[in-house]
Amino acid sequence: MSQAPPSDPNFEARVRSSFERQGIMKTIGACLLSVAPGEVRIELPWSEAVTQQHGFVHAGILSTIADNACGYAAYTLMPAGSDVLGVENKINFLAPARGERFVSVGRVVKAGRTLAVCAGEVWAYDNGTESLVAVMQTTMMTLVK
Amino acid sequence: MSQAPPSDPNFEARVRSSFERQGIMKTIGACLLSVAPGEVRIELPWSEAVTQQHGFVHAGILSTIADNACGYAAYTLMPAGSDVLGVENKINFLAPARGERFVSVGRVVKAGRTLAVCAGEVWAYDNGTESLVAVMQTTMMTLVK
Amino acid sequence: MSQAPPSDPNFEARVRSSFERQGIMKTIGACLLSVAPGEVRIELPWSEAVTQQHGFVHAGILSTIADNACGYAAYTLMPAGSDVLGVENKINFLAPARGERFVSVGRVVKAGRTLAVCAGEVWAYDNGTESLVAVMQTTMMTLVK
Amino acid sequence: MSQAPPSDPNFEARVRSSFERQGIMKTIGACLLSVAPGEVRIELPWSEAVTQQHGFVHAGILSTIADNACGYAAYTLMPAGSDVLGVENKINFLAPARGERFVSVGRVVKAGRTLAVCAGEVWAYDNGTESLVAVMQTTMMTLVK
Repeated sequence: MSQAPPSDPNFEARVRSSFERQGIMKTIGACLLSVAPGEVRIELPWSEAVTQQHGFVHAGILSTIADNACGYAAYTLMPAGSDVLGVENKINFLAPARGERFVSVGRVVKAGRTLAVCAGEVWAYDNGTESLVAVMQTTMMTLVK
Repeated sequence: MSQAPPSDPNFEARVRSSFERQGIMKTIGACLLSVAPGEVRIELPWSEAVTQQHGFVHAGILSTIADNACGYAAYTLMPAGSDVLGVENKINFLAPARGERFVSVGRVVKAGRTLAVCAGEVWAYDNGTESLVAVMQTTMMTLVK
Repeated sequence: MSQAPPSDPNFEARVRSSFERQGIMKTIGACLLSVAPGEVRIELPWSEAVTQQHGFVHAGILSTIADNACGYAAYTLMPAGSDVLGVENKINFLAPARGERFVSVGRVVKAGRTLAVCAGEVWAYDNGTESLVAVMQTTMMTLVK
Repeated sequence: MSQAPPSDPNFEARVRSSFERQGIMKTIGACLLSVAPGEVRIELPWSEAVTQQHGFVHAGILSTIADNACGYAAYTLMPAGSDVLGVENKINFLAPARGERFVSVGRVVKAGRTLAVCAGEVWAYDNGTESLVAVMQTTMMTLVK
Protein backbone atom coordinates (compact mmCIF):
# COMPACT_ATOMS: atom_id res chain seq x y z
CA MET A 1 0.00 0.00 0.00
CA SER A 2 1.14 3.55 -0.58
CA GLN A 3 2.73 5.03 2.48
CA ALA A 4 3.05 8.52 3.84
CA PRO A 5 6.73 9.45 4.34
CA PRO A 6 8.12 8.95 7.85
CA SER A 7 7.53 11.91 10.13
CA ASP A 8 10.97 11.37 11.68
CA PRO A 9 13.78 11.79 9.06
CA ASN A 10 16.07 10.05 11.53
CA PHE A 11 14.05 6.81 11.36
CA GLU A 12 16.88 4.58 10.12
CA ALA A 13 19.36 5.54 12.84
CA ARG A 14 16.63 5.06 15.44
CA VAL A 15 15.85 1.53 14.19
CA ARG A 16 19.53 0.58 13.96
CA SER A 17 20.24 1.84 17.45
CA SER A 18 17.33 -0.13 18.92
CA PHE A 19 18.34 -3.28 17.02
CA GLU A 20 21.89 -3.01 18.39
CA ARG A 21 20.53 -3.11 21.94
CA GLN A 22 18.74 -6.45 21.43
CA GLY A 23 20.80 -9.21 23.03
CA ILE A 24 18.83 -11.90 21.21
CA MET A 25 19.87 -10.64 17.76
CA LYS A 26 23.54 -11.04 18.71
CA THR A 27 22.84 -14.44 20.24
CA ILE A 28 21.30 -15.86 17.07
CA GLY A 29 23.66 -13.95 14.73
CA ALA A 30 20.99 -11.90 12.95
CA CYS A 31 21.67 -8.57 11.28
CA LEU A 32 19.67 -5.74 9.73
CA LEU A 33 19.75 -6.04 5.93
CA SER A 34 17.74 -2.94 5.06
CA VAL A 35 15.63 -0.23 6.69
CA ALA A 36 13.20 1.65 4.44
CA PRO A 37 10.02 3.58 5.29
CA GLY A 38 7.48 0.90 6.23
CA GLU A 39 9.76 -2.04 5.29
CA VAL A 40 12.61 -3.74 7.15
CA ARG A 41 14.67 -6.86 6.33
CA ILE A 42 16.63 -9.01 8.74
CA GLU A 43 19.09 -11.78 7.81
CA LEU A 44 19.82 -14.88 9.86
CA PRO A 45 22.49 -17.41 8.93
CA TRP A 46 21.82 -21.04 9.80
CA SER A 47 23.68 -22.25 12.87
CA GLU A 48 23.39 -25.17 15.25
CA ALA A 49 22.48 -22.58 17.91
CA VAL A 50 19.02 -21.89 16.43
CA THR A 51 17.89 -25.41 15.53
CA GLN A 52 14.94 -27.61 16.44
CA GLN A 53 15.19 -31.41 16.76
CA HIS A 54 15.81 -32.09 13.05
CA GLY A 55 18.45 -29.44 12.51
CA PHE A 56 16.14 -26.90 10.83
CA VAL A 57 15.64 -23.41 12.23
CA HIS A 58 13.20 -23.52 15.17
CA ALA A 59 9.69 -22.15 14.50
CA GLY A 60 10.12 -19.72 17.39
CA ILE A 61 13.22 -18.22 15.79
CA LEU A 62 11.32 -17.71 12.53
CA SER A 63 8.74 -15.90 14.68
CA THR A 64 11.52 -13.89 16.32
CA ILE A 65 12.99 -12.54 13.07
CA ALA A 66 9.57 -12.03 11.42
CA ASP A 67 8.17 -10.20 14.47
CA ASN A 68 11.31 -8.07 14.70
CA ALA A 69 11.18 -7.07 11.02
CA CYS A 70 7.50 -6.14 11.41
CA GLY A 71 8.08 -4.21 14.62
CA TYR A 72 10.90 -2.17 13.11
CA ALA A 73 8.93 -1.61 9.87
CA ALA A 74 6.19 -0.07 12.02
CA TYR A 75 8.80 1.87 14.02
CA THR A 76 10.14 3.59 10.85
CA LEU A 77 6.79 5.39 10.57
CA MET A 78 6.40 6.31 14.24
CA PRO A 79 7.16 9.82 15.51
CA ALA A 80 10.51 10.78 17.04
CA GLY A 81 10.62 10.01 20.74
CA SER A 82 8.14 7.15 20.52
CA ASP A 83 8.66 3.49 21.26
CA VAL A 84 7.25 0.38 19.54
CA LEU A 85 5.42 -2.38 21.41
CA GLY A 86 4.38 -5.77 20.01
CA VAL A 87 0.68 -6.40 20.70
CA GLU A 88 0.25 -9.82 19.07
CA ASN A 89 1.31 -11.89 16.10
CA LYS A 90 0.11 -14.86 14.08
CA ILE A 91 2.42 -17.01 11.98
CA ASN A 92 1.86 -19.90 9.57
CA PHE A 93 4.72 -22.27 8.81
CA LEU A 94 4.73 -23.29 5.14
CA ALA A 95 7.74 -25.60 4.92
CA PRO A 96 10.67 -26.78 7.04
CA ALA A 97 13.20 -23.96 7.49
CA ARG A 98 16.02 -25.66 5.62
CA GLY A 99 18.81 -23.53 4.20
CA GLU A 100 22.07 -21.76 4.81
CA ARG A 101 20.48 -18.36 5.40
CA PHE A 102 17.06 -16.83 6.02
CA VAL A 103 15.64 -13.38 5.38
CA SER A 104 12.60 -11.96 7.13
CA VAL A 105 10.71 -9.06 5.57
CA GLY A 106 8.32 -6.89 7.57
CA ARG A 107 5.96 -4.49 5.83
CA VAL A 108 3.40 -2.05 7.20
CA VAL A 109 -0.08 -2.81 5.83
CA LYS A 110 -1.82 -0.01 7.71
CA ALA A 111 -0.32 2.54 10.08
CA GLY A 112 -2.86 4.14 12.38
CA ARG A 113 -2.23 6.66 15.12
CA THR A 114 -2.03 4.07 17.90
CA LEU A 115 -1.86 0.69 16.13
CA ALA A 116 -0.09 -0.55 13.01
CA VAL A 117 -0.86 -3.80 11.19
CA CYS A 118 2.11 -5.45 9.50
CA ALA A 119 2.73 -8.44 7.23
CA GLY A 120 5.85 -10.55 7.63
CA GLU A 121 7.52 -13.20 5.49
CA VAL A 122 10.48 -15.48 6.05
CA TRP A 123 12.43 -16.68 3.00
CA ALA A 124 14.93 -19.55 3.00
CA TYR A 125 18.00 -19.64 0.75
CA ASP A 126 19.08 -23.21 0.27
CA ASN A 127 21.78 -24.13 -2.18
CA GLY A 128 20.74 -21.57 -4.80
CA THR A 129 16.99 -21.87 -4.34
CA GLU A 130 14.67 -19.39 -2.62
CA SER A 131 11.45 -20.38 -0.88
CA LEU A 132 8.86 -18.82 1.38
CA VAL A 133 8.82 -20.72 4.69
CA ALA A 134 6.56 -18.60 6.91
CA VAL A 135 4.02 -15.75 6.74
CA MET A 136 3.03 -13.52 9.66
CA GLN A 137 0.28 -11.01 10.42
CA THR A 138 0.86 -8.77 13.41
CA THR A 139 -0.25 -5.71 15.39
CA MET A 140 2.23 -3.13 16.73
CA MET A 141 1.52 -0.23 19.08
CA THR A 142 3.03 3.25 19.27
CA LEU A 143 4.07 4.25 22.76
CA VAL A 144 4.63 7.96 23.17
CA LYS A 145 7.16 8.46 25.93
CA MET B 1 -10.73 -30.81 28.90
CA SER B 2 -10.60 -34.45 29.86
CA GLN B 3 -8.02 -36.32 27.90
CA ALA B 4 -7.68 -39.92 26.75
CA PRO B 5 -4.46 -41.47 28.10
CA PRO B 6 -1.43 -41.37 25.76
CA SER B 7 -1.34 -44.30 23.34
CA ASP B 8 2.45 -44.44 23.73
CA PRO B 9 3.46 -45.22 27.37
CA ASN B 10 6.94 -44.03 26.44
CA PHE B 11 5.72 -40.48 25.75
CA GLU B 12 7.90 -38.72 28.32
CA ALA B 13 11.18 -40.24 27.16
CA ARG B 14 10.23 -39.40 23.57
CA VAL B 15 9.58 -35.75 24.44
CA ARG B 16 12.76 -35.44 26.51
CA SER B 17 14.88 -36.98 23.77
CA SER B 18 13.48 -34.59 21.14
CA PHE B 19 13.94 -31.58 23.44
CA GLU B 20 17.60 -32.54 23.99
CA ARG B 21 18.24 -32.37 20.25
CA GLN B 22 17.04 -28.74 19.96
CA GLY B 23 20.06 -26.47 19.71
CA ILE B 24 17.95 -23.37 20.45
CA MET B 25 16.91 -24.64 23.91
CA LYS B 26 20.58 -24.94 24.92
CA THR B 27 21.31 -21.54 23.40
CA ILE B 28 18.69 -19.73 25.46
CA GLY B 29 19.21 -21.89 28.56
CA ALA B 30 15.68 -23.37 28.67
CA CYS B 31 14.87 -26.70 30.31
CA LEU B 32 11.90 -29.06 30.55
CA LEU B 33 10.14 -28.59 33.91
CA SER B 34 7.44 -31.25 33.51
CA VAL B 35 6.00 -33.62 30.93
CA ALA B 36 2.48 -34.94 31.59
CA PRO B 37 -0.15 -36.30 29.18
CA GLY B 38 -1.38 -33.27 27.25
CA GLU B 39 0.62 -30.74 29.32
CA VAL B 40 4.26 -29.65 29.19
CA ARG B 41 6.15 -26.90 31.06
CA ILE B 42 9.41 -25.24 30.05
CA GLU B 43 11.51 -22.93 32.19
CA LEU B 44 13.70 -20.09 30.93
CA PRO B 45 15.95 -18.02 33.18
CA TRP B 46 16.44 -14.37 32.25
CA SER B 47 19.76 -13.66 30.57
CA GLU B 48 21.20 -10.84 28.49
CA ALA B 49 21.28 -13.36 25.62
CA VAL B 50 17.49 -13.35 25.16
CA THR B 51 16.69 -9.65 25.55
CA GLN B 52 15.02 -7.01 23.41
CA GLN B 53 16.05 -3.35 23.42
CA HIS B 54 14.86 -2.62 26.98
CA GLY B 55 16.38 -5.65 28.63
CA PHE B 56 13.13 -7.67 28.83
CA VAL B 57 12.79 -11.09 27.20
CA HIS B 58 12.19 -10.69 23.46
CA ALA B 59 8.64 -11.39 22.24
CA GLY B 60 10.02 -13.99 19.83
CA ILE B 61 11.59 -15.93 22.68
CA LEU B 62 8.28 -15.93 24.54
CA SER B 63 6.83 -17.38 21.31
CA THR B 64 9.65 -19.92 21.18
CA ILE B 65 9.06 -21.34 24.65
CA ALA B 66 5.25 -21.17 24.36
CA ASP B 67 5.25 -22.87 20.95
CA ASN B 68 7.65 -25.52 22.20
CA ALA B 69 5.55 -26.30 25.29
CA CYS B 70 2.45 -26.60 23.08
CA GLY B 71 4.18 -28.77 20.49
CA TYR B 72 5.48 -31.18 23.10
CA ALA B 73 2.10 -31.22 24.91
CA ALA B 74 0.55 -32.38 21.62
CA TYR B 75 3.43 -34.82 21.09
CA THR B 76 2.71 -36.60 24.41
CA LEU B 77 -0.60 -37.77 22.91
CA MET B 78 0.71 -38.80 19.50
CA PRO B 79 1.37 -42.44 18.61
CA ALA B 80 4.82 -44.04 18.88
CA GLY B 81 6.88 -43.49 15.76
CA SER B 82 5.16 -40.21 14.86
CA ASP B 83 6.61 -36.73 14.64
CA VAL B 84 5.10 -33.35 15.58
CA LEU B 85 4.97 -30.41 13.19
CA GLY B 86 3.98 -26.82 14.04
CA VAL B 87 1.29 -25.58 11.65
CA GLU B 88 0.71 -22.08 13.02
CA ASN B 89 0.50 -20.09 16.22
CA LYS B 90 -1.00 -16.86 17.52
CA ILE B 91 0.31 -15.05 20.57
CA ASN B 92 -0.85 -12.00 22.52
CA PHE B 93 1.62 -10.13 24.72
CA LEU B 94 -0.01 -8.96 27.95
CA ALA B 95 2.83 -7.20 29.74
CA PRO B 96 6.59 -6.64 29.41
CA ALA B 97 8.46 -9.89 30.12
CA ARG B 98 10.23 -8.62 33.23
CA GLY B 99 11.53 -11.13 35.75
CA GLU B 100 14.32 -13.47 36.74
CA ARG B 101 12.66 -16.56 35.28
CA PHE B 102 9.77 -17.50 32.99
CA VAL B 103 7.65 -20.63 32.68
CA SER B 104 5.68 -21.57 29.58
CA VAL B 105 2.79 -24.01 29.87
CA GLY B 106 1.38 -25.84 26.85
CA ARG B 107 -1.94 -27.70 27.10
CA VAL B 108 -3.85 -29.71 24.52
CA VAL B 109 -7.35 -28.29 24.02
CA LYS B 110 -8.41 -30.83 21.39
CA ALA B 111 -6.39 -33.71 19.94
CA GLY B 112 -7.70 -34.96 16.62
CA ARG B 113 -6.22 -37.68 14.43
CA THR B 114 -4.24 -35.28 12.25
CA LEU B 115 -4.38 -31.93 14.04
CA ALA B 116 -4.20 -30.84 17.66
CA VAL B 117 -5.19 -27.43 19.02
CA CYS B 118 -3.20 -26.24 22.04
CA ALA B 119 -3.29 -23.30 24.45
CA GLY B 120 -0.06 -21.80 25.74
CA GLU B 121 0.77 -19.39 28.55
CA VAL B 122 3.96 -17.67 29.63
CA TRP B 123 4.31 -16.70 33.30
CA ALA B 124 6.95 -14.31 34.66
CA TYR B 125 8.46 -14.64 38.14
CA ASP B 126 9.78 -11.31 39.27
CA ASN B 127 11.02 -10.76 42.78
CA GLY B 128 8.38 -12.98 44.40
CA THR B 129 5.46 -12.03 42.17
CA GLU B 130 3.93 -14.16 39.42
CA SER B 131 2.21 -12.70 36.36
CA LEU B 132 0.86 -13.89 33.03
CA VAL B 133 2.80 -12.17 30.24
CA ALA B 134 1.60 -13.98 27.09
CA VAL B 135 -1.14 -16.31 25.85
CA MET B 136 -0.93 -18.48 22.73
CA GLN B 137 -3.34 -20.50 20.59
CA THR B 138 -1.75 -22.94 18.17
CA THR B 139 -2.25 -25.86 15.76
CA MET B 140 0.06 -28.88 15.72
CA MET B 141 0.11 -31.73 13.18
CA THR B 142 0.88 -35.42 13.62
CA LEU B 143 3.31 -36.75 11.04
CA VAL B 144 3.33 -40.53 10.78
CA LYS B 145 6.76 -41.56 9.61
CA MET C 1 -8.03 -14.22 36.27
CA SER C 2 -9.23 -12.03 39.09
CA GLN C 3 -10.81 -8.89 37.84
CA ALA C 4 -11.22 -5.40 39.23
CA PRO C 5 -14.92 -4.43 39.44
CA PRO C 6 -16.32 -2.44 36.49
CA SER C 7 -15.79 1.29 36.82
CA ASP C 8 -19.23 1.87 35.31
CA PRO C 9 -22.01 0.38 37.50
CA ASN C 10 -24.30 0.73 34.49
CA PHE C 11 -22.25 -1.74 32.44
CA GLU C 12 -25.02 -4.26 31.81
CA ALA C 13 -27.53 -1.75 30.44
CA ARG C 14 -24.80 -0.31 28.22
CA VAL C 15 -23.97 -3.75 26.78
CA ARG C 16 -27.64 -4.67 26.27
CA SER C 17 -28.38 -1.37 24.55
CA SER C 18 -25.46 -1.78 22.15
CA PHE C 19 -26.41 -5.41 21.42
CA GLU C 20 -29.97 -4.34 20.57
CA ARG C 21 -28.65 -1.98 17.90
CA GLN C 22 -26.79 -4.77 16.01
CA GLY C 23 -28.81 -5.74 12.96
CA ILE C 24 -26.80 -8.93 12.49
CA MET C 25 -27.84 -10.36 15.88
CA LYS C 26 -31.51 -10.08 14.91
CA THR C 27 -30.76 -11.53 11.48
CA ILE C 28 -29.18 -14.69 12.86
CA GLY C 29 -31.53 -14.90 15.86
CA ALA C 30 -28.87 -14.54 18.56
CA CYS C 31 -29.62 -13.22 22.04
CA LEU C 32 -27.66 -12.17 25.12
CA LEU C 33 -27.71 -14.96 27.72
CA SER C 34 -25.74 -13.23 30.46
CA VAL C 35 -23.68 -10.10 31.11
CA ALA C 36 -21.28 -10.21 34.04
CA PRO C 37 -18.14 -8.16 34.75
CA GLY C 38 -15.55 -9.47 32.27
CA GLU C 39 -17.78 -12.29 30.95
CA VAL C 40 -20.62 -12.34 28.40
CA ARG C 41 -22.62 -15.22 26.90
CA ILE C 42 -24.57 -15.21 23.65
CA GLU C 43 -26.97 -17.91 22.45
CA LEU C 44 -27.67 -18.81 18.85
CA PRO C 45 -30.30 -21.36 17.79
CA TRP C 46 -29.57 -23.43 14.69
CA SER C 47 -31.42 -22.28 11.61
CA GLU C 48 -31.08 -22.82 7.89
CA ALA C 49 -30.25 -19.10 7.69
CA VAL C 50 -26.78 -19.53 9.26
CA THR C 51 -25.58 -22.72 7.55
CA GLN C 52 -22.61 -23.66 5.42
CA GLN C 53 -22.80 -26.23 2.62
CA HIS C 54 -23.38 -29.27 4.88
CA GLY C 55 -26.06 -27.72 7.06
CA PHE C 56 -23.79 -26.96 10.04
CA VAL C 57 -23.36 -23.42 11.36
CA HIS C 58 -20.94 -21.48 9.14
CA ALA C 59 -17.46 -20.87 10.57
CA GLY C 60 -17.94 -17.14 10.08
CA ILE C 61 -21.06 -17.16 12.26
CA LEU C 62 -19.14 -18.96 15.00
CA SER C 63 -16.60 -16.13 14.67
CA THR C 64 -19.42 -13.59 14.81
CA ILE C 65 -20.88 -14.81 18.10
CA ALA C 66 -17.47 -15.49 19.67
CA ASP C 67 -16.12 -12.07 18.68
CA ASN C 68 -19.30 -10.39 19.93
CA ALA C 69 -19.16 -12.15 23.31
CA CYS C 70 -15.49 -11.14 23.68
CA GLY C 71 -16.13 -7.55 22.62
CA TYR C 72 -18.96 -7.12 25.09
CA ALA C 73 -16.99 -8.87 27.86
CA ALA C 74 -14.29 -6.24 27.35
CA TYR C 75 -16.93 -3.52 27.17
CA THR C 76 -18.29 -4.40 30.65
CA LEU C 77 -14.96 -3.21 32.09
CA MET C 78 -14.59 -0.04 30.03
CA PRO C 79 -15.43 3.38 31.46
CA ALA C 80 -18.78 5.08 30.96
CA GLY C 81 -18.92 7.00 27.71
CA SER C 82 -16.39 4.80 25.96
CA ASP C 83 -16.85 2.59 22.93
CA VAL C 84 -15.38 -0.84 22.11
CA LEU C 85 -13.52 -1.58 18.87
CA GLY C 86 -12.43 -5.01 17.62
CA VAL C 87 -8.72 -4.94 16.71
CA GLU C 88 -8.25 -8.55 15.61
CA ASN C 89 -9.24 -12.11 16.40
CA LYS C 90 -8.00 -15.65 15.87
CA ILE C 91 -10.26 -18.68 15.94
CA ASN C 92 -9.63 -22.42 15.77
CA PHE C 93 -12.45 -24.73 14.71
CA LEU C 94 -12.40 -27.96 16.72
CA ALA C 95 -15.37 -29.87 15.31
CA PRO C 96 -18.31 -29.35 12.92
CA ALA C 97 -20.88 -27.00 14.49
CA ARG C 98 -23.65 -29.57 14.70
CA GLY C 99 -26.47 -29.01 17.18
CA GLU C 100 -29.76 -27.34 17.90
CA ARG C 101 -28.24 -24.41 19.76
CA PHE C 102 -24.84 -22.81 20.37
CA VAL C 103 -23.47 -20.68 23.18
CA SER C 104 -20.47 -18.39 22.87
CA VAL C 105 -18.61 -17.29 25.98
CA GLY C 106 -16.28 -14.30 25.99
CA ARG C 107 -13.95 -13.67 28.93
CA VAL C 108 -11.44 -10.91 29.57
CA VAL C 109 -7.95 -12.33 30.10
CA LYS C 110 -6.26 -8.96 30.61
CA ALA C 111 -7.81 -5.52 30.57
CA GLY C 112 -5.31 -2.74 29.98
CA ARG C 113 -6.00 0.96 29.67
CA THR C 114 -6.17 0.92 25.88
CA LEU C 115 -6.28 -2.76 24.90
CA ALA C 116 -8.00 -5.82 26.33
CA VAL C 117 -7.17 -9.43 25.47
CA CYS C 118 -10.11 -11.84 25.59
CA ALA C 119 -10.66 -15.59 25.23
CA GLY C 120 -13.75 -16.91 23.49
CA GLU C 121 -15.36 -20.33 23.26
CA VAL C 122 -18.28 -21.69 21.28
CA TRP C 123 -20.19 -24.65 22.71
CA ALA C 124 -22.66 -26.81 20.76
CA TYR C 125 -25.70 -28.45 22.34
CA ASP C 126 -26.72 -31.42 20.27
CA ASN C 127 -29.39 -33.80 21.44
CA GLY C 128 -28.37 -33.66 25.10
CA THR C 129 -24.61 -33.53 24.57
CA GLU C 130 -22.36 -30.49 25.00
CA SER C 131 -19.14 -30.00 23.07
CA LEU C 132 -16.58 -27.26 22.48
CA VAL C 133 -16.53 -26.44 18.75
CA ALA C 134 -14.32 -23.33 18.57
CA VAL C 135 -11.84 -21.32 20.63
CA MET C 136 -10.90 -17.68 20.00
CA GLN C 137 -8.19 -15.28 21.16
CA THR C 138 -8.81 -11.62 20.45
CA THR C 139 -7.78 -8.00 21.08
CA MET C 140 -10.30 -5.26 21.84
CA MET C 141 -9.64 -1.51 22.08
CA THR C 142 -11.21 1.15 24.27
CA LEU C 143 -12.28 4.24 22.38
CA VAL C 144 -12.88 7.23 24.58
CA LYS C 145 -15.44 9.43 22.88
CA MET D 1 3.01 -17.22 -5.75
CA SER D 2 2.99 -19.28 -8.91
CA GLN D 3 0.43 -22.01 -8.78
CA ALA D 4 0.12 -25.43 -10.38
CA PRO D 5 -3.09 -25.69 -12.44
CA PRO D 6 -6.10 -27.26 -10.67
CA SER D 7 -6.13 -31.05 -10.85
CA ASP D 8 -9.91 -30.94 -11.27
CA PRO D 9 -10.94 -29.08 -14.47
CA ASN D 10 -14.44 -28.88 -13.01
CA PHE D 11 -13.26 -26.71 -10.10
CA GLU D 12 -15.49 -23.71 -10.82
CA ALA D 13 -18.74 -25.67 -10.99
CA ARG D 14 -17.78 -27.47 -7.79
CA VAL D 15 -17.18 -24.16 -5.94
CA ARG D 16 -20.40 -22.61 -7.28
CA SER D 17 -22.46 -25.62 -6.31
CA SER D 18 -21.08 -25.62 -2.76
CA PHE D 19 -21.60 -21.85 -2.42
CA GLU D 20 -25.25 -22.25 -3.49
CA ARG D 21 -25.86 -24.66 -0.62
CA GLN D 22 -24.72 -22.15 2.05
CA GLY D 23 -27.78 -20.70 3.76
CA ILE D 24 -25.73 -17.89 5.30
CA MET D 25 -24.69 -16.47 1.91
CA LYS D 26 -28.36 -16.05 0.95
CA THR D 27 -29.15 -14.60 4.37
CA ILE D 28 -26.57 -11.83 4.08
CA GLY D 29 -27.06 -11.34 0.32
CA ALA D 30 -23.51 -12.28 -0.73
CA CYS D 31 -22.65 -13.62 -4.19
CA LEU D 32 -19.65 -15.15 -5.92
CA LEU D 33 -17.91 -12.51 -8.06
CA SER D 34 -15.18 -14.69 -9.57
CA VAL D 35 -13.67 -18.16 -9.26
CA ALA D 36 -10.15 -18.62 -10.62
CA PRO D 37 -7.49 -21.21 -9.76
CA GLY D 38 -6.31 -20.27 -6.28
CA GLU D 39 -8.34 -17.05 -6.11
CA VAL D 40 -11.99 -16.38 -5.30
CA ARG D 41 -13.94 -13.12 -4.84
CA ILE D 42 -17.22 -12.63 -2.98
CA GLU D 43 -19.38 -9.51 -3.00
CA LEU D 44 -21.59 -8.31 -0.17
CA PRO D 45 -23.90 -5.31 -0.43
CA TRP D 46 -24.44 -3.24 2.69
CA SER D 47 -27.76 -3.91 4.40
CA GLU D 48 -29.22 -3.27 7.83
CA ALA D 49 -29.25 -7.06 8.25
CA VAL D 50 -25.45 -7.31 8.61
CA THR D 51 -24.72 -4.31 10.83
CA GLN D 52 -23.09 -3.79 14.20
CA GLN D 53 -24.16 -1.11 16.67
CA HIS D 54 -23.00 1.86 14.56
CA GLY D 55 -24.49 0.72 11.27
CA PHE D 56 -21.21 -0.57 9.78
CA VAL D 57 -20.81 -4.19 8.67
CA HIS D 58 -20.19 -6.41 11.72
CA ALA D 59 -16.62 -7.70 12.14
CA GLY D 60 -17.94 -11.27 12.16
CA ILE D 61 -19.51 -10.79 8.74
CA LEU D 62 -16.20 -9.49 7.38
CA SER D 63 -14.71 -12.71 8.79
CA THR D 64 -17.48 -14.72 7.16
CA ILE D 65 -16.89 -13.41 3.65
CA ALA D 66 -13.09 -13.42 3.98
CA ASP D 67 -13.03 -16.97 5.35
CA ASN D 68 -15.41 -18.12 2.62
CA ALA D 69 -13.32 -16.58 -0.17
CA CYS D 70 -10.19 -18.23 1.28
CA GLY D 71 -11.89 -21.62 1.71
CA TYR D 72 -13.15 -21.65 -1.86
CA ALA D 73 -9.79 -20.40 -3.20
CA ALA D 74 -8.21 -23.44 -1.54
CA TYR D 75 -11.03 -25.66 -2.81
CA THR D 76 -10.30 -24.71 -6.46
CA LEU D 77 -6.97 -26.52 -6.14
CA MET D 78 -8.24 -29.61 -4.31
CA PRO D 79 -8.83 -32.90 -6.11
CA ALA D 80 -12.24 -33.97 -7.42
CA GLY D 81 -14.31 -35.69 -4.75
CA SER D 82 -12.63 -33.86 -1.87
CA ASP D 83 -14.13 -31.48 0.63
CA VAL D 84 -12.68 -28.33 2.22
CA LEU D 85 -12.57 -27.77 5.99
CA GLY D 86 -11.65 -24.53 7.78
CA VAL D 87 -8.96 -25.19 10.40
CA GLU D 88 -8.46 -21.68 11.76
CA ASN D 89 -8.29 -18.05 10.75
CA LYS D 90 -6.87 -14.76 11.99
CA ILE D 91 -8.23 -11.38 10.95
CA ASN D 92 -7.12 -7.80 11.58
CA PHE D 93 -9.64 -5.00 11.23
CA LEU D 94 -8.05 -1.92 9.65
CA ALA D 95 -10.92 0.54 9.49
CA PRO D 96 -14.69 0.68 10.09
CA ALA D 97 -16.52 -1.26 7.34
CA ARG D 98 -18.33 1.75 5.92
CA GLY D 99 -19.61 1.59 2.35
CA GLU D 100 -22.35 0.48 0.01
CA ARG D 101 -20.64 -2.75 -0.98
CA PHE D 102 -17.73 -4.96 0.09
CA VAL D 103 -15.55 -7.42 -1.78
CA SER D 104 -13.55 -10.19 -0.13
CA VAL D 105 -10.62 -11.74 -1.98
CA GLY D 106 -9.15 -15.10 -0.97
CA ARG D 107 -5.82 -16.26 -2.39
CA VAL D 108 -3.86 -19.45 -1.84
CA VAL D 109 -0.38 -18.69 -0.50
CA LYS D 110 0.73 -22.31 -0.26
CA ALA D 111 -1.21 -25.44 -1.17
CA GLY D 112 0.13 -28.59 0.46
CA ARG D 113 -1.29 -32.10 0.21
CA THR D 114 -3.29 -31.83 3.43
CA LEU D 115 -3.22 -28.15 4.40
CA ALA D 116 -3.43 -24.91 2.45
CA VAL D 117 -2.51 -21.47 3.76
CA CYS D 118 -4.53 -18.58 2.32
CA ALA D 119 -4.51 -14.78 2.54
CA GLY D 120 -7.77 -12.86 2.57
CA GLU D 121 -8.66 -9.21 2.14
CA VAL D 122 -11.88 -7.25 2.48
CA TRP D 123 -12.29 -4.07 0.44
CA ALA D 124 -14.96 -1.44 1.03
CA TYR D 125 -16.48 0.65 -1.77
CA ASP D 126 -17.86 3.85 -0.34
CA ASN D 127 -19.14 6.60 -2.57
CA GLY D 128 -16.48 6.11 -5.25
CA THR D 129 -13.56 5.33 -2.94
CA GLU D 130 -11.96 1.93 -2.36
CA SER D 131 -10.26 0.97 0.90
CA LEU D 132 -8.86 -2.13 2.55
CA VAL D 133 -10.81 -2.77 5.77
CA ALA D 134 -9.56 -6.21 6.87
CA VAL D 135 -6.78 -8.73 6.21
CA MET D 136 -6.94 -12.43 7.05
CA GLN D 137 -4.48 -15.32 7.28
CA THR D 138 -6.02 -18.79 7.40
CA THR D 139 -5.46 -22.56 7.20
CA MET D 140 -7.71 -24.86 5.17
CA MET D 141 -7.69 -28.66 5.12
CA THR D 142 -8.42 -31.10 2.30
CA LEU D 143 -10.82 -33.86 3.29
CA VAL D 144 -10.77 -36.80 0.93
CA LYS D 145 -14.18 -38.45 1.06
